[in-house]
Amino acid sequence: MNKRWQKEVRALHLKKNRKASQRFLVEGRKNVEELLRSDYKIEALFYTQEFEERHQDLLNSSSAELKQLSNISDLEKAGTFKSNDAAIAIVRMKEAVKPNAENELVICLDDVRDPGNLGTIIRIADWYGIKNVFCSDNSADFYNPKVISSTMGSFCRINPYYGDLTSFLEAQNSNTPIVGAFMDGDNIYQSKLAEKGILVMGNESNGISEQIEGLINKKITIPRFGEAESLNVAIATAVILDNYKRQ
Amino acid sequence: MNKRWQKEVRALHLKKNRKASQRFLVEGRKNVEELLRSDYKIEALFYTQEFEERHQDLLNSSSAELKQLSNISDLEKAGTFKSNDAAIAIVRMKEAVKPNAENELVICLDDVRDPGNLGTIIRIADWYGIKNVFCSDNSADFYNPKVISSTMGSFCRINPYYGDLTSFLEAQNSNTPIVGAFMDGDNIYQSKLAEKGILVMGNESNGISEQIEGLINKKITIPRFGEAESLNVAIATAVILDNYKRQ
Repeated sequence: MNKRWQKEVRALHLKKNRKASQRFLVEGRKNVEELLRSDYKIEALFYTQEFEERHQDLLNSSSAELKQLSNISDLEKAGTFKSNDAAIAIVRMKEAVKPNAENELVICLDDVRDPGNLGTIIRIADWYGIKNVFCSDNSADFYNPKVISSTMGSFCRINPYYGDLTSFLEAQNSNTPIVGAFMDGDNIYQSKLAEKGILVMGNESNGISEQIEGLINKKITIPRFGEAESLNVAIATAVILDNYKRQ
Repeated sequence: MNKRWQKEVRALHLKKNRKASQRFLVEGRKNVEELLRSDYKIEALFYTQEFEERHQDLLNSSSAELKQLSNISDLEKAGTFKSNDAAIAIVRMKEAVKPNAENELVICLDDVRDPGNLGTIIRIADWYGIKNVFCSDNSADFYNPKVISSTMGSFCRINPYYGDLTSFLEAQNSNTPIVGAFMDGDNIYQSKLAEKGILVMGNESNGISEQIEGLINKKITIPRFGEAESLNVAIATAVILDNYKRQ
């Protein structure tokens, strides 16, 4: 990887550069593997010899504009991973589509700030067959390398849409279920959860904000059997989606 | 915090020192708060003025052997947290009790290696009213500061027992349900999950080992509706426990 590319990769560690150039990084075996199977446009792909040997077919069928054998040390110097013995790609962002809650279940995040949580939620959404995640403008950046990394490849299958959550909820039909996770809502085991509509999950420290709370028409809660004060937002998302699907 | 205590705190970052002295660290507001309400013996407690003002009652009723006002910078220099504006405690380990799967549901971890995952599993266990977690000897260390931190106080209410998982499972009554999470087991939505017995969760990369698999008498799986290859082990533990409780 020459100096120019190292600089390009390093620039994409930062949100402002990702936003300005509409490109982002994908790093590590699992994520690059899934990337190669997706319809994302790959601008440049750097990989180790071992990755090349294991993924010859994927590499042959890839339309990456630049494919280049690289040293592990270059991948680690330029990328964000402490150790990366597989690959790094520079990828063009896709245009996000505004989700339509009349057709499907849409997850809305009200300021989920931690990249690990967002990535894990993307992976969970993908497990449960959700396609669209609406992120409030203050949520973590979907294209943050930590987010991409913790999706374990699921970033390829989820459409992330950023916008003003208040306006999005206000614009819904009056009969669209807008469900929110709270500490004092109805027991999810006894709640009828609609297959289409919106599920809102709140911020790690403060939960769902007051403004958004006013737009929710059904509050739900995961029953607690012990004494932990709360569940992490990604854990709660998984348990709630499982209850949606189990019904 | 004088030099001697700074050295003591720093020594406890390492497992060998924790093991030799049977002491561990508890850091940050939430965890120290819960610690002060627990029956753990506190050898030394360092806290900021703000922590003192907010938690006067807890501090007054605490039997900590040494209580000392400290600077934020000392807490951050000696501890493992990048930022800590609350407190650090040096705490004596309690003797762990071997769980009895005839009386209750016991979670067994087959080499769960990531401290964040172990901590999150402890917090989930506490939410669902589980008291005992059996950790295979190669699992992450319960007293690792990252584990304690990610339990969000739940470390106070869970009994962690380390030992040889094979022997533990072999010693069970033949009618004890030994349930394991796999990718190809019975659908949990259609499985009757016994309230007492054992639930085994496997390693992050390899799942449940072959040796342990041979000792399991019921394989279960969380149904998948989308395309993610797997769920993180902590997420899977939460979803499975929720299914146990929901029945």
